[in-house]
Amino acid sequence: MDFIPLTKKMELFDVHQVQEVKEIISREFKPLNKITEVPIMEAVNRVLAVNIVSQENVPGFHRSTVDGYAVKAANTYGSSESLPSFFTIVKEVEMGVSADFEIQEGEASYVPTGGMLPKGADAMVMIEDVEAVGTLLNVFEQVAPRENVIFQGEDVKEGEVVLKKGHRLRPQDLGALASIGVTKVPVFPKLKVGILSTGDEIVPPDTEVLEVGKVRDINGISISAYVQALGAEVIYGGIVEDQCEAYLLKSKELFEQVDFLILSGGSSMGTKDFSSKVMNNLGEPGVLVHGVAIKPGKPTIIANANGKPVMGLPGHPVSAMVLFDLFGKQIMNQLHGVTENPFIKQMKAKLTRNIASQVGRTDFVRVQLEIREDGLWANPVYGKSGLITNLVKSDGMIEISEFKEGVIEGEVVNVILFT
Amino acid sequence: MDFIPLTKKMELFDVHQVQEVKEIISREFKPLNKITEVPIMEAVNRVLAVNIVSQENVPGFHRSTVDGYAVKAANTYGSSESLPSFFTIVKEVEMGVSADFEIQEGEASYVPTGGMLPKGADAMVMIEDVEAVGTLLNVFEQVAPRENVIFQGEDVKEGEVVLKKGHRLRPQDLGALASIGVTKVPVFPKLKVGILSTGDEIVPPDTEVLEVGKVRDINGISISAYVQALGAEVIYGGIVEDQCEAYLLKSKELFEQVDFLILSGGSSMGTKDFSSKVMNNLGEPGVLVHGVAIKPGKPTIIANANGKPVMGLPGHPVSAMVLFDLFGKQIMNQLHGVTENPFIKQMKAKLTRNIASQVGRTDFVRVQLEIREDGLWANPVYGKSGLITNLVKSDGMIEISEFKEGVIEGEVVNVILFT
Repeated sequence: MDFIPLTKKMELFDVHQVQEVKEIISREFKPLNKITEVPIMEAVNRVLAVNIVSQENVPGFHRSTVDGYAVKAANTYGSSESLPSFFTIVKEVEMGVSADFEIQEGEASYVPTGGMLPKGADAMVMIEDVEAVGTLLNVFEQVAPRENVIFQGEDVKEGEVVLKKGHRLRPQDLGALASIGVTKVPVFPKLKVGILSTGDEIVPPDTEVLEVGKVRDINGISISAYVQALGAEVIYGGIVEDQCEAYLLKSKELFEQVDFLILSGGSSMGTKDFSSKVMNNLGEPGVLVHGVAIKPGKPTIIANANGKPVMGLPGHPVSAMVLFDLFGKQIMNQLHGVTENPFIKQMKAKLTRNIASQVGRTDFVRVQLEIREDGLWANPVYGKSGLITNLVKSDGMIEISEFKEGVIEGEVVNVILFT
Repeated sequence: MDFIPLTKKMELFDVHQVQEVKEIISREFKPLNKITEVPIMEAVNRVLAVNIVSQENVPGFHRSTVDGYAVKAANTYGSSESLPSFFTIVKEVEMGVSADFEIQEGEASYVPTGGMLPKGADAMVMIEDVEAVGTLLNVFEQVAPRENVIFQGEDVKEGEVVLKKGHRLRPQDLGALASIGVTKVPVFPKLKVGILSTGDEIVPPDTEVLEVGKVRDINGISISAYVQALGAEVIYGGIVEDQCEAYLLKSKELFEQVDFLILSGGSSMGTKDFSSKVMNNLGEPGVLVHGVAIKPGKPTIIANANGKPVMGLPGHPVSAMVLFDLFGKQIMNQLHGVTENPFIKQMKAKLTRNIASQVGRTDFVRVQLEIREDGLWANPVYGKSGLITNLVKSDGMIEISEFKEGVIEGEVVNVILFT
């Protein structure tokens, strides 16, 4: 007699491990390679579409970093407060003007911070270290060659690659572009991401009075916001009823307008789940991944429809966010060939209590961070993956690998911070 | 005879320590307290202007988190694969519809994921753990009360404060707002920040051919981008010549239009520096801080002009960024009453080599991060504070406190990540 129920035998999904899914994504989706130009004032967080090569040296001249006197460094050697060296003050350099004269041995020329050194000078003595008496200058400190000076090309050299294609532009990167005169920045167009929610119980967030049995669309909003925070444009397709034809029709319509389509809800194995069918209908080869060995978020679908990525997220808000963070972000970076800085948004903390986990499945546990005298601690936030407030209370999550049976109190864990 | 040069006696600034400056900022500048409403789809990264109190329970009903059968948990106790318990299948619950019937002892009712439990049921048995034969249901697992169910109000309770005033809205926070039907979000208006660059050597970034002696405006761009990345609107005042009246006129004009004015360049002690004079002219009490015991960035000015903050940044791009990161961001948060998550953007690493530092001054040293087998290491990026590429190569910076003579190789340091 066989006591295993029939439904148990019906293996739910052929699940993949997290790492496998990441490899599938990086293999399947190629950068879009469209280029647009944006004014530098609008370029922060955009992704560079080409390598930027400087056409000039920065600075274009030997530039003082202090107020003081340009000299030949060797002439100051041995100077001290008790034994100053003496210089003859010659012509002064004005700010922003070419210093088209040359200084000789024993001569000093006043140069303001940011000003150009005259020919012959290779260092600056700071104003605090000198005393001027008429045209005589007493220098009370010795300076080394290049001291207090930024030499021509020291910041950027002509022909140098300043920033690489695929780099997400930070404020300082834009400063560097400004320094070489690149004010129209060649970037990838903003990704267009479509989001469609499904489920007969889902109603628009602006529904004032909820009927019993209904809930408002959480994922449509939280995933849209996440996509926007990553610098993309969202086309929100609204809510479609859990009915195959309507779902397919609406998905197709949205699919045509976007670079990446996200379907929220409808990816579990319930009787009314058409997501994978819809995805297979959108293009070839269709569904690549249906189910990931991960908690929360097992019923994830990833498809490639004629080169365009489509992702099916489970309806539970926590699962949806965790999965989008893991795979959706990777897909978006992939479409722009972005190399993410691996250090951003990860930190070490000690765990405040034991967490059991199942071997063969990667667990993501939400945590709240806490500073104690002996360092940073991560406090697990328990709760079902359907609770959005579970995420609101959390600072990030920890990953418990598929090979571990759990983590113990005091163990150092890696916390992935939320946006 | 006195060997100390006269210019040495002219003490440059009455410098403040970093912590003092932070205290001055937090004492002097008050939140603006203006409120505006934005659609939820545009609210990511905005700052909440009021506490959000829920008017309802989320979910509004006991909600299943699985596909399966609603039962009285007690009826399943002792069930196992070899000893199933038996139930009578009654009415099915449809998705998104009120389950307005009650189940009795020994009864089970099919409910899809997200569906409503009928009265009398307090748990869900997963579809994988049952076998249905006609109206007979064999249950092969026991469930505890509340298992696989999100109870009414378990996510959010009516009357609960879901999010607090001064909170910067993350994607998951918007999900929580959507769940309670708040789709017009009361936030602070975007801060308006004015940026004016000064210096006779500074020319607009789009200058194609630089005259010798000139450099392009780096700070105007990098600080603007930083301000934008923090969610504010920038009014870029361009470049004003280093001439007192013109500078004052342009500053006043920009000051009137903004919530926070930043003057870049012109804050060192050179002969042509009018920044503090200009700031004292803008309003009372005027300059609060002129000089911070910090490297790089000593010549920083912070003023309060009739309650409105004005900040003078040194011209060197690295100094300007470090100072803006330290104090400018704090001022912006202060104007919105934002409490920053202290965990974001800081991480521990070991230092790859010794760094000497001066007691009495806080040093900020740029570092590049590197993953080695034994963890994360911080590699100092040396270079003058006038080099913008110094920042481009860095992932963040470490702070060496005013009480330390340096940090040694292998020491664990706190790395503040750049935006």
